[in-house]
Amino acid sequence: MSGDSLRTSNRRWCVARAHDGSGLSGMSLSRDHFLASEAAIPEPEDGEALIKSVYFSPDPMNHAWVRGVPGRLPPIAVGDAMRGGVAGRVIASRHPLFRVGEGVTGFLDWADFNLSTGTDQLGVPLQRVPQGISLASGLGALGMTGLCAYLGLVDIGKPMPGDTVVVSGASGAIGTIAGQIAKLAGARVIGTARGPSKCAVASGLGFDEVIDQTADGWTERLAALCPDDIDVFFDNVGGEILDAALLLMARRGRIVICGATAHYDGTARIANHTMLAVRGCTMAGFFYFDHLDRWPEGRERLANWLRSGVIREVFDIAEGFEAVPDAALGQFAGANMGRKLVRIADDPGAQMVP
Amino acid sequence: MSGDSLRTSNRRWCVARAHDGSGLSGMSLSRDHFLASEAAIPEPEDGEALIKSVYFSPDPMNHAWVRGVPGRLPPIAVGDAMRGGVAGRVIASRHPLFRVGEGVTGFLDWADFNLSTGTDQLGVPLQRVPQGISLASGLGALGMTGLCAYLGLVDIGKPMPGDTVVVSGASGAIGTIAGQIAKLAGARVIGTARGPSKCAVASGLGFDEVIDQTADGWTERLAALCPDDIDVFFDNVGGEILDAALLLMARRGRIVICGATAHYDGTARIANHTMLAVRGCTMAGFFYFDHLDRWPEGRERLANWLRSGVIREVFDIAEGFEAVPDAALGQFAGANMGRKLVRIADDPGAQMVP
Repeated sequence: MSGDSLRTSNRRWCVARAHDGSGLSGMSLSRDHFLASEAAIPEPEDGEALIKSVYFSPDPMNHAWVRGVPGRLPPIAVGDAMRGGVAGRVIASRHPLFRVGEGVTGFLDWADFNLSTGTDQLGVPLQRVPQGISLASGLGALGMTGLCAYLGLVDIGKPMPGDTVVVSGASGAIGTIAGQIAKLAGARVIGTARGPSKCAVASGLGFDEVIDQTADGWTERLAALCPDDIDVFFDNVGGEILDAALLLMARRGRIVICGATAHYDGTARIANHTMLAVRGCTMAGFFYFDHLDRWPEGRERLANWLRSGVIREVFDIAEGFEAVPDAALGQFAGANMGRKLVRIADDPGAQMVP
Repeated sequence: MSGDSLRTSNRRWCVARAHDGSGLSGMSLSRDHFLASEAAIPEPEDGEALIKSVYFSPDPMNHAWVRGVPGRLPPIAVGDAMRGGVAGRVIASRHPLFRVGEGVTGFLDWADFNLSTGTDQLGVPLQRVPQGISLASGLGALGMTGLCAYLGLVDIGKPMPGDTVVVSGASGAIGTIAGQIAKLAGARVIGTARGPSKCAVASGLGFDEVIDQTADGWTERLAALCPDDIDVFFDNVGGEILDAALLLMARRGRIVICGATAHYDGTARIANHTMLAVRGCTMAGFFYFDHLDRWPEGRERLANWLRSGVIREVFDIAEGFEAVPDAALGQFAGANMGRKLVRIADDPGAQMVP
């Protein structure tokens, strides 16, 4: 057991000050929005389980919650704990459905320990990490990352064998999974990413072609690689790549709006949306939490693909509780490859004795 | 009978010079792209009908065809006749299915007379103008105008009773029809238009609210009128109104991209497409000619609504063959209210003797 397992206090990251920004995009939080505090480790009461955190996953929602963007949850008040994706182990339980040693994920306080009655702060049931799947994958392929890739691609993109699927942000957490699922669906998959090292990630995962958006002539290369047009564009980026893809869409093509990293600074615009009318295309997003009914199918398939090795995950794991603010801020700097996580403790493991 | 019926030559508008522009938008044609020429009136051979033109309808496709925008048809070569929407009467027939006196519409030469074997230049069957419907309505509510409104609203917008439907370009050919169909579907309908006279047109057709996009504070007014968000946005304009509507969309709202008049000069951009992901919305266009299977339903319903008076049409009719170029150019100047047509001859009428 590492020293982490012997913690005698419950560290947590809190919101240090209110956000003064507005609008829908922009670099949202800064280091001084984060304040670490410490409290006693809570004890579960009847109907509660105590979860020891192992991984946190930073997401754009962390920023939105502090800024008070209208959504499912109210803003996080100053002084309250940051919430976010957490993967951990049940280490004590007075809940009839949770056993010590089970791996779970959910949106919880970014704290060493959380109590739960079975749901997370979004009111969503804690998701069990199945046998043979790591806690990290619980926040990766089996978490919001993998399910956004699965649901966006399958339910909106609807790739068919032989289709040309373009995935922007191909080295990112969602792009890496979306591209691999598109390959499994029999499509020809073209990824786009910024810079040679990110492109290498996508190439290594079996994308048929990868286009470096920082190279001269990348739009011409995209057009040359899509002579029969793009059937599905899975977009994590927006801006220039979305505009370029719009011009190349096949008739009745589908564009999945999953993310828009190019719009984080608030200056990106698109000009070619009228191609939706010219080509009879659909461009749609989806709100992950509106589709809980689709999670079990996606999680089961993704777990099977992970276990059998036909889908691989890329993680970028920062170490230690102190690394949390930088990891949360860094997701808007375009530095990530794959799923960014922060490991704040050793995994106590599924075999621990109650 | 007017003098038109005694014509001894076949006037037609031809393409006078090649288009030197590029890109997808922009004011496309100018007066010197049009050249009138004259030829003998053709005689129908076996299997052909002779159609005397009564109305021409200018559409953005006229511009696209001259400019060579990729599409279903090749560009119109210099010296060839302009093609476009034509409503006319069969005045002579050696075709087994067409009788003299029948009203028909289709994409034909912009000429006094056309021969047809039963299809138009797009390969689409000539559409009959049903009993009790004027030739003008054949190009209006029962033509591309009305069917784009019907199919866009019904198949993509899917309004439900009680929904809030916003229609931009509410005084335009498609907007006037789309708004009235949305009312029939039980929705609360808010129109937007530019200037008091256009707003008055929409108000007169029964829109619940009409917002003048040239008035100060129009975006705030739109937000105030949509406190429960926009369920369906039927967009003929793009640009600022699309960006404003995106911010106000209801969860799982639908945006119909039917037109984009604000983008004709090539400078308009949109910034808020990421709301599609935030709210789980769909934004889709459709290519009219991909949905021929849906035309009969739409034409039948629209004809019934016209006959019973629950839908009214707004026409802006220019008079005479010489008015064609200005009418074709004017559609990009934002001057039209309702369906712009050019009447180039008296209607010989359905009762004419063969």
